[in-house]
Amino acid sequence: MTYCIAIKLDDGLVFLSDSRTNAGVDDVSTYRKMTIFNENYDRSVVLMSSGNLAISQSIRQILIQKKQASTIWKATSLFDIAETVGEAIKEVYKRDSSTMNDLGVDFNCSFILGGQIQKEHCRLFKIYSAGNFIETDTECNYFQIGESKYGKPILDRVLNSDMDLDVAAKCALLSMDSTLKSNISVGLPLDLLVYKKNDFMINNYLSISDKNSYFNEIRTSWSSYLRDAFDQLPDINWSNPTVNHSHEIYNKQLLQKKLK
Amino acid sequence: MTYCIAIKLDDGLVFLSDSRTNAGVDDVSTYRKMTIFNENYDRSVVLMSSGNLAISQSIRQILIQKKQASTIWKATSLFDIAETVGEAIKEVYKRDSSTMNDLGVDFNCSFILGGQIQKEHCRLFKIYSAGNFIETDTECNYFQIGESKYGKPILDRVLNSDMDLDVAAKCALLSMDSTLKSNISVGLPLDLLVYKKNDFMINNYLSISDKNSYFNEIRTSWSSYLRDAFDQLPDINWSNPTVNHSHEIYNKQLLQKKLK
Repeated sequence: MTYCIAIKLDDGLVFLSDSRTNAGVDDVSTYRKMTIFNENYDRSVVLMSSGNLAISQSIRQILIQKKQASTIWKATSLFDIAETVGEAIKEVYKRDSSTMNDLGVDFNCSFILGGQIQKEHCRLFKIYSAGNFIETDTECNYFQIGESKYGKPILDRVLNSDMDLDVAAKCALLSMDSTLKSNISVGLPLDLLVYKKNDFMINNYLSISDKNSYFNEIRTSWSSYLRDAFDQLPDINWSNPTVNHSHEIYNKQLLQKKLK
Repeated sequence: MTYCIAIKLDDGLVFLSDSRTNAGVDDVSTYRKMTIFNENYDRSVVLMSSGNLAISQSIRQILIQKKQASTIWKATSLFDIAETVGEAIKEVYKRDSSTMNDLGVDFNCSFILGGQIQKEHCRLFKIYSAGNFIETDTECNYFQIGESKYGKPILDRVLNSDMDLDVAAKCALLSMDSTLKSNISVGLPLDLLVYKKNDFMINNYLSISDKNSYFNEIRTSWSSYLRDAFDQLPDINWSNPTVNHSHEIYNKQLLQKKLK
């Protein structure tokens, strides 16, 4: 399993990925899930992957080596690159899915693709196993792939499109923190990339290990703030009039009476 | 989908369940997931269910109507009742699973069983679709069934066995709040039951609708405290020395060089 998140904001894009891969609990490895394609002053494109590693590695290889590579460097729209990723998925599907199916292995992969190409605004796509894809909308400005549920509540509570990029990056890191705490199939190091719109270069990229002082600081402080907030909430008052006891409770006599 | 949680504490047990059932998004209903068996001064037993409603209703019916009912009222150990629930699951499995399988429907159900019987301490079990079950341990003092992931981080951060019962109930309600916010297949009203050890009666039971002032108060305050805590955390400083830029970035020239 893995966990990746990307957020589209008025000011740009935030990407965060973990690096854990496991084939069962006895086969755990570290693989980076983020691939960056950058041509200064022309395009900055980020691809993150989850799912079967053999599939996602094959797709990445197709994208950098074959004719699809020319699309990445020449496309005038990120939509065209999303289509190209979709084609690469279909190529691997054609090659491997039948045998995988015979062996009872799902053809499972998903991608987040985002970035900016000259003359376009920033765009963000989520690409599915079938090679089809969706783009963010004004009402839904983030995508998650992989183990997404543990880290979703904080995103739903905090994210706004008009948020500062670094504030959204902090929110993504807290979402990752919740996921790391609850699921051992997600692990460090993390790759964090913050792209400021119209930059067309990678200025703010960070590889986060367990020694990263910023990540450790916000993890510790967040735990402690949450604990304080929790303590400040009132306990339930059972004598309060909003309390009721209307639930049907089975007891032996009642049941025997009913059964007669 | 549904979400139920039960916590075993030094002082007793906390149970919380939602009441949403859905067969697809166009068939959503309200069914209570909590069943209470109580015989004052003798036993208090709580059963919560998730999964296929036809299965869980059949199992509950078997437990209250047939010979299994005598076990619920006569068992000297909660372990025996867990076995009886397991037998009821197997009975329904025998009746329905073959046809369900033909129709491509999974035989999917799970239960949390907890309570106290005279001469025993409080116990808490999680029962699976196969009728097998596990009990809490000193290191793992809570069980979830149904849509469990959204609400797990807060439990992992806050819960302790020596916590006050009402504090643990507050934690369960916040866990439910995160789940309600992120998944429309979990919904109000909730059933909250707090059992104080050696009480052998149901004193603290609460049905929580969207009009419950306590639940609304902690939901609103929690959102606001979280937002404040989030704002207090420092933003990333990109000029900080712990920041590095070691990630391999593909650019057109580099790739062309590699491919030659």
